[in-house]
Amino acid sequence: MQKSPLQIARQSYKPKMPIALNGHVRLVEGAATQSVADQKEIKELFPNTYGLPVITMEPAQSSAAQSASINVGVILSGGQAPGGHNVIAGLFDGLKALNPANKLYGFLGGPSGLIEGKYQELTADIIDDYRNTGGFDIIGSGRTKLEETWQFDNGIEVCKKLGIKAVVIIGGDDSNTNACVLAEYYLQKKCGIQVIGCPKTIDGDLKNEMIETSFGFDTACKVYSELIGNIQRDANSAKKYWHFIRLMGRSASHIALECALQSQPNICLISEEVEAKNMTLNDIVEQIVEVIVDRANAGLNFGTILIPEGLIEFIPAMRILIQELNDMLANNEEFVALEGDDAKREYVKSMLTPASCELYRSLPKGIARQLTLDRDPHGNVMVSQIETEKLLIEMVGKRLAQLKANGTFKGKFSALNHFFGYEGRCAIPSNFDADYCYSIGVTATHLIAAGKTGYMSLVRNLTKPAAEWIAGGVPITMMMNMEKRNGKMKPVIQKALVDLNGAPFLYLKNHRAEWADANTSYIYPGPVQYYGPTEVCDQPTRTLKLEHNAK
Amino acid sequence: MQKSPLQIARQSYKPKMPIALNGHVRLVEGAATQSVADQKEIKELFPNTYGLPVITMEPAQSSAAQSASINVGVILSGGQAPGGHNVIAGLFDGLKALNPANKLYGFLGGPSGLIEGKYQELTADIIDDYRNTGGFDIIGSGRTKLEETWQFDNGIEVCKKLGIKAVVIIGGDDSNTNACVLAEYYLQKKCGIQVIGCPKTIDGDLKNEMIETSFGFDTACKVYSELIGNIQRDANSAKKYWHFIRLMGRSASHIALECALQSQPNICLISEEVEAKNMTLNDIVEQIVEVIVDRANAGLNFGTILIPEGLIEFIPAMRILIQELNDMLANNEEFVALEGDDAKREYVKSMLTPASCELYRSLPKGIARQLTLDRDPHGNVMVSQIETEKLLIEMVGKRLAQLKANGTFKGKFSALNHFFGYEGRCAIPSNFDADYCYSIGVTATHLIAAGKTGYMSLVRNLTKPAAEWIAGGVPITMMMNMEKRNGKMKPVIQKALVDLNGAPFLYLKNHRAEWADANTSYIYPGPVQYYGPTEVCDQPTRTLKLEHNAK
Repeated sequence: MQKSPLQIARQSYKPKMPIALNGHVRLVEGAATQSVADQKEIKELFPNTYGLPVITMEPAQSSAAQSASINVGVILSGGQAPGGHNVIAGLFDGLKALNPANKLYGFLGGPSGLIEGKYQELTADIIDDYRNTGGFDIIGSGRTKLEETWQFDNGIEVCKKLGIKAVVIIGGDDSNTNACVLAEYYLQKKCGIQVIGCPKTIDGDLKNEMIETSFGFDTACKVYSELIGNIQRDANSAKKYWHFIRLMGRSASHIALECALQSQPNICLISEEVEAKNMTLNDIVEQIVEVIVDRANAGLNFGTILIPEGLIEFIPAMRILIQELNDMLANNEEFVALEGDDAKREYVKSMLTPASCELYRSLPKGIARQLTLDRDPHGNVMVSQIETEKLLIEMVGKRLAQLKANGTFKGKFSALNHFFGYEGRCAIPSNFDADYCYSIGVTATHLIAAGKTGYMSLVRNLTKPAAEWIAGGVPITMMMNMEKRNGKMKPVIQKALVDLNGAPFLYLKNHRAEWADANTSYIYPGPVQYYGPTEVCDQPTRTLKLEHNAK
Repeated sequence: MQKSPLQIARQSYKPKMPIALNGHVRLVEGAATQSVADQKEIKELFPNTYGLPVITMEPAQSSAAQSASINVGVILSGGQAPGGHNVIAGLFDGLKALNPANKLYGFLGGPSGLIEGKYQELTADIIDDYRNTGGFDIIGSGRTKLEETWQFDNGIEVCKKLGIKAVVIIGGDDSNTNACVLAEYYLQKKCGIQVIGCPKTIDGDLKNEMIETSFGFDTACKVYSELIGNIQRDANSAKKYWHFIRLMGRSASHIALECALQSQPNICLISEEVEAKNMTLNDIVEQIVEVIVDRANAGLNFGTILIPEGLIEFIPAMRILIQELNDMLANNEEFVALEGDDAKREYVKSMLTPASCELYRSLPKGIARQLTLDRDPHGNVMVSQIETEKLLIEMVGKRLAQLKANGTFKGKFSALNHFFGYEGRCAIPSNFDADYCYSIGVTATHLIAAGKTGYMSLVRNLTKPAAEWIAGGVPITMMMNMEKRNGKMKPVIQKALVDLNGAPFLYLKNHRAEWADANTSYIYPGPVQYYGPTEVCDQPTRTLKLEHNAK
């Protein structure tokens, strides 16, 4: 493996940890817990893992006697997030500190590695190559869902073969829910395999009273904010382009919001607000146009607009149109047989409800074509591939041309589009994520050593210096409620959407008029730094600071 | 101006300088020079600025007597490049060191600021806000060309009014050529106004025997390489996407080449090679397909491909097609009157030469539409807006589908597209660019103080530590030859395309088979660092090192 100078330098970085994790550790148990809602149903579904106490790690005077050696398996589940390798490094170091004979196995390619018995022992040599690096390439990730009994049973066989006493699942909300289902099942089966979850996702939507932030969100937002800042400086220098920037994060707008807090763009759309206000696509266009016209009147024909990836699906009327198209076009041979784009377009228009037809007609042709022609294997519109930033550019441009014709708009409008997602999911973790993830990994080993299962390994108090962080474990059932999924009620960890009454959104709301106006308020965050002064290198996100009222 | 922590921290960075610039300076003149070609013509056009000696700065024992105070004007010309603000900061500090009464004026919005007398005095307060920052927003930039006598005469009036003795023009090849024309004119007019150029462009094509690199290339390539590395780590983790990444740099492929040297992607296209080998679009597609099939055979259905922005125009057959379309469609009312995309497409096909028609038919519809519908105000195809990466994805996908049908291709092909340009032009300058630019600025003040004109301020020996850099001045005429521009022979500084016999390209050529194959060779450069170890923070580009045989 040929390495860049920074890769080499970062290998020797020692992550900062909560003071409790630096020496001997003692687990302190709190009172019994209950789930955030639907207590009766959750308790019935999780008789063995419900009601467990929250656990806090505290420094201990002396070492517990060295335990018998244990083997642990680890799984990376779902989309990449910076810091995953450090969770594994923390697990490894934690296990070896407890007993040098302990072993760590990595299941390859995600949860399917456990089911199919594909694994690799992670030795010091391998771990050292991946310390403080981005990516999930150490063992690969995958999207197989651990949901079926036969999968769980396969897992038992594989673990028995390897002498694995505990499985650590690093994943998002669904993966952690499934980790708990697995823990419950293994307790029922009395097979002696513990399951511990770790909170991962760059989207930032795995967050609740117990989880301050999911790992990866910090680094990804900092990478996107670096780029947004660079583009803003360009916009403010060239003074001739509006940059429409779409940001990854399909179901929640945390990334767009955090990037806005870091860079102060002229406009930042928030899907949750669009939905709450029942806005139409035209409402959004008008809102953007208003800012563009105002800035043009002040002589500024440039600006930046942040657009959350999931926006389209949060516009109620669009959601209906997409549903109608999905219903209409799935396995529609009549449609497939039509020749030429124009004929297909006419066919679609003839089949939609009047309201959806009106919306469909108002869409730029390229987008309308994308809605009808590009479909996933199930025949559904591939919403995540819709270039919302181009859709908005085209519609805003059209509206501004009308306003120009009637004399209301006197400026110029040239726009450029960007989409940032894959640029940040595997970035080298920030010091924050490197420290946070490593601490989560070490914490997991203490939960395992204490025989805990159905817990999420968590570190809290994150707006303070790492030494003051609080490590511990939270019963996963505590974070669950019942939600409808594919028509059935299921126990799940609630996804955290942007809270329209929360401090981060209120900060945006209170400042966005100022950011939109002619006194350009851009902030230029620059690239993630690893070696400079603390105020540059060791800061959590603005979201976290605002939520915890920290400076 | 609200600032990010890194913005604040970088304000106090003191750029490193050649040892000669740290104390008193003595100018050493070399022998008379001549232009790189067309000596007779260039000498005739530049009777007063031709044949001047190369100048080197050396440390002096004692200060020259403090000179009478002087005023200097500075212009930012053309596209942004990281470090422009530091050239200005170096100029400012250099002038104040010579005589605190010296003044620096910034002409606003590019060369038009000089012509129209739009300016601002740059005081210490203003300069301090922009030290070591990206962007050209301190005074703005512009693309007005300084070519006409009336413009030069206006400039004299403006300079006289402000008592300006010298104008510093920070720009690319054309702007520096024009700086020399201006210098010559002012000498002929004996108006006493000196003109000094500075070599700027992220494209890296302002480079020759005297200019080791233009400023901004270093930072921009490092930002793009950061993103490419992140995407590669993602590709290697998720193992399911081919990423097609287009990189800014329209006329030369230096950026794509440098990024390839830093990140080792599976494929890097080089426009100059495509042209030299007279390759067709299909040849390029086949070349990509071959690598994809080989990797699929090894079980790897992912990878990265770097594509220089200018590629399309370097494919001889495409250039002909574009020319035919430009000729055919300019002011073509018959075409405009046609209704529907299909009709327009048929019309175009009926009018092209057979070879171009064949190529046009082979293009994906979306691209074909772009070639005929989106046109600039002169009726020309907007080549820079063609999404070459999408064109290639579509054509490669089509070809792979054929190969799949006949059993030659057994893998999967999913592709994602990216374009990086505006993300890097205004990045916070790397230490290299911060140091280099500041040194260029200080050097310019010494050239001005010595009464020099028609010179470019240059710093060389850049693969060594900054203390060993050599500062000096090179007569701009020395770098000129005669080239046809818009049908007329003009004196110009040659644009440096990628040298297919140069060390950087040969390194790519010698390693690309290895980078393409199944033993993934990705390097992950990570973000630009300002505070870490020297090997991380103070390295020049790989291009520069290879060209100068440095380690």
